[in-house]
Amino acid sequence: MKPVTILGIAGSLRQKSTNRGLLRAAQAHLPEAAVLEIADLSDVPFYNQDIVGKPESVLRVLSQMAAAQALVLACTEYNYSMAPALKNILDWASREPDNVLLAGKPVALMGAGGGMGTSRAQYHLRQVCVFLDLRPLNKPEVFANAFAGGFDGEGDLQDEKLLRVVAEQMQALVAKVRSMPV
Amino acid sequence: MKPVTILGIAGSLRQKSTNRGLLRAAQAHLPEAAVLEIADLSDVPFYNQDIVGKPESVLRVLSQMAAAQALVLACTEYNYSMAPALKNILDWASREPDNVLLAGKPVALMGAGGGMGTSRAQYHLRQVCVFLDLRPLNKPEVFANAFAGGFDGEGDLQDEKLLRVVAEQMQALVAKVRSMPV
Amino acid sequence: MKPVTILGIAGSLRQKSTNRGLLRAAQAHLPEAAVLEIADLSDVPFYNQDIVGKPESVLRVLSQMAAAQALVLACTEYNYSMAPALKNILDWASREPDNVLLAGKPVALMGAGGGMGTSRAQYHLRQVCVFLDLRPLNKPEVFANAFAGGFDGEGDLQDEKLLRVVAEQMQALVAKVRSMPV
Amino acid sequence: MKPVTILGIAGSLRQKSTNRGLLRAAQAHLPEAAVLEIADLSDVPFYNQDIVGKPESVLRVLSQMAAAQALVLACTEYNYSMAPALKNILDWASREPDNVLLAGKPVALMGAGGGMGTSRAQYHLRQVCVFLDLRPLNKPEVFANAFAGGFDGEGDLQDEKLLRVVAEQMQALVAKVRSMPV
Repeated sequence: MKPVTILGIAGSLRQKSTNRGLLRAAQAHLPEAAVLEIADLSDVPFYNQDIVGKPESVLRVLSQMAAAQALVLACTEYNYSMAPALKNILDWASREPDNVLLAGKPVALMGAGGGMGTSRAQYHLRQVCVFLDLRPLNKPEVFANAFAGGFDGEGDLQDEKLLRVVAEQMQALVAKVRSMPV
Repeated sequence: MKPVTILGIAGSLRQKSTNRGLLRAAQAHLPEAAVLEIADLSDVPFYNQDIVGKPESVLRVLSQMAAAQALVLACTEYNYSMAPALKNILDWASREPDNVLLAGKPVALMGAGGGMGTSRAQYHLRQVCVFLDLRPLNKPEVFANAFAGGFDGEGDLQDEKLLRVVAEQMQALVAKVRSMPV
Repeated sequence: MKPVTILGIAGSLRQKSTNRGLLRAAQAHLPEAAVLEIADLSDVPFYNQDIVGKPESVLRVLSQMAAAQALVLACTEYNYSMAPALKNILDWASREPDNVLLAGKPVALMGAGGGMGTSRAQYHLRQVCVFLDLRPLNKPEVFANAFAGGFDGEGDLQDEKLLRVVAEQMQALVAKVRSMPV
Repeated sequence: MKPVTILGIAGSLRQKSTNRGLLRAAQAHLPEAAVLEIADLSDVPFYNQDIVGKPESVLRVLSQMAAAQALVLACTEYNYSMAPALKNILDWASREPDNVLLAGKPVALMGAGGGMGTSRAQYHLRQVCVFLDLRPLNKPEVFANAFAGGFDGEGDLQDEKLLRVVAEQMQALVAKVRSMPV
C-alpha cells in the first residue's frame, strides 16, 4: 500500500508554537502507511498581485502541496480569526491554474489557543475551504487549550486525551483519502 | 472645530488596488472638518511573537493609528476571507498595552471585489472587531464590484452611486466620532 | 440503476416563495435516475425539549429524510441569517439517535433573496452542517436574486442562466451520492 | 433618574432553560434605576409573509420591545447556530416601518450551552444585528457552560464568577443606554 502523503501547515511563525506542536503530534500519531511533512512559512512573503513570478520560498511550499494528497491546517487564531501566515499561503496556492494544488483535497483542521481552541478562526477557515474546494472533515474537531497545561515549553502536546483526538482525526483523514475515487 | 482624524487601511498591496481606490474616494468625499491619511503596509512584516521590538514600518502605522480617532478599513477579499495584510496590521496593533490604539474607536468598513463586494470578508472582519473592541458602523455598508466598470485603470472609483454611498458612510463615521463622550 | 432519492426543504413558508420555486426548478432539472420530493413545513412546530414524542407533522418530514440519500436546502435569508423554519426542522432531525437521518448525507445549498442571493445565510447554514455531519457541495453555489426579474409571480424560476446552474448543481449532487462507498 | 427599560429574550422554549435562567440572573443583578422584563415566546408562530395582521402573541412581544431602550438576548445554540425561536421574534420585529423597534438599540448577548457557551451562535446573531441596526456590546461576552454545574435544576445560575460577569454586562448595557444622545 502506497503511503498517503500529507502536508501540515501552521499559522504561527514563532519557534515554540503550540500549533506547530499539534502538527508534530499528528506526525507522531499517523496511522500506518501515511507520511506527514511540515511546511516552513518563515520566509513566505505576502501575496501581492504585482509580484511577477513566485519567490523561492513560495515555490517550495507549493511543490509540497502538489505532492500531498491531503492537508492538515493548524489554524492559529489571532483576534478571533485566522493568523495571516496560514491564510496567505492558501492565497498563494489558489492562484495556480485550475486550482490544481487544492481542488478536492481532504483537509483536517486543528488549532491551539485560548479557551475555545481557535474555534472562531476555524469556522472562518472552513468558509475559505468552500471557495478553494478543499474538503474539510466535519469530525472530529480539534480544539486545544494552549494555556491549560496540555503543552510543554517547546510547544509539544502532552495531554493524553487531546493526543487521542489528534490520532483519531489523522485516521479519519487517511481513511478519507483512501475512500476517494482514483 | 478641530478636524476629526481618520486612518484608512487597505488589505491589498498592489499599486492599482481598487480597495486603495476606495480609500482615495473616501478621502475626496469627507465632510468638513475631517482628515483621512492612508497607511502604507508595503513593508510591514508578519506578526511573530518571537520578534523583539517592533520594526520601523510597524511603528509608523501604529503611530498613525494612535493619532486617529477613527479607522476606515478597505477589506480586500481573497478566497472568501480577509486579505492577510489588513488582518496582520490589526494583529500588530492589538499587542499594545490596554489595547489603546483600537479600543472604542469607530470604524467604517468597505471593500471592492467580485460580485458580492467583499461581503464575506467584511463579516469576518466584523468578528475581529468584537475582540479588538472596535465599533464598526452598521450602515451604510459599502460593497463595490471591482469588475463591473465602476473603477478606472488606476483603481479610482468612478461610479457615481457608489461615490455617494462612500460619502454617506464618511458622514456617518465623522458624526459617530463627534457624538462620542469626550 | 436505482433512482437517487433527494429531499428538498425550503426555509420560507409563504405560498409563492421563490425558494420553493428553486426547489421546483431543481425537481424539473434532475439528471436521469433521480427523484426529488419537497417537504412541507407549514405545520411543523418549534422544537422544544419539553415536548414528549414527536408531532405528526415532524414525523412526516423525518420519515422523508430517512428515505432520502441527499438533501437540497433552499436557504431563505431573513436579516442576514437563516429563516427559522429551515433551521428548526434540522434541529428536530438532529435529535435522532446516532444522527441517522443526517450523518454523512450530501447536501446542495441554494437560495433566492436580495442582491447577494442569501449568501450570508448559506454560510451560516454551512456551519450548521459541520455539527450535523452533512456534506455540502462546495460548487456550484446557487445565489439567486429574487427581485431582478428571474422569477415569475408564482415564484417559479425563469432565468435561463440560473436554471443551468441549478441543473449543474443537481448533477453534482447525484454524482456525489453515486460516488459514495455503499 | 428614570429607570432604563430592558427586554430580555431567550431562544429556548423549555421551562427549565438555562438561557432563561441567565435572563433571571441579569434581572437580579441590574444596576440601580433599571428594570428588565422577560419576553414569553411560547405561542409566537413562525413569521410568514402570507399572514395578514400580527397574531396577539407577536403584538405583545413587539409592544414590550417598543417600550424597551435595550435588549438582552440569551442566545440558545442548537447545532452550531441560533435557536429558531429567538431569530423568529427578531424577524417579526424587523418588519415594522423604519425598523423603529430595533434601530440603534444597545444589546447584550449571553448564552448557556455546551463547552463554548453558545459562542458559535452568538457570532451569527451579531451578524443579524448588523442588518437590524442593533448595537451589541463588544465586552464582556457571556459564555456559560450549562453542563458543568453552574446552574441548578431549575435553570438558575449559581456560579459566582459567571454571576459577576452577568452583573458587569448589565452595568455596561445600562451605561451604554445612558450615554446615548437623547
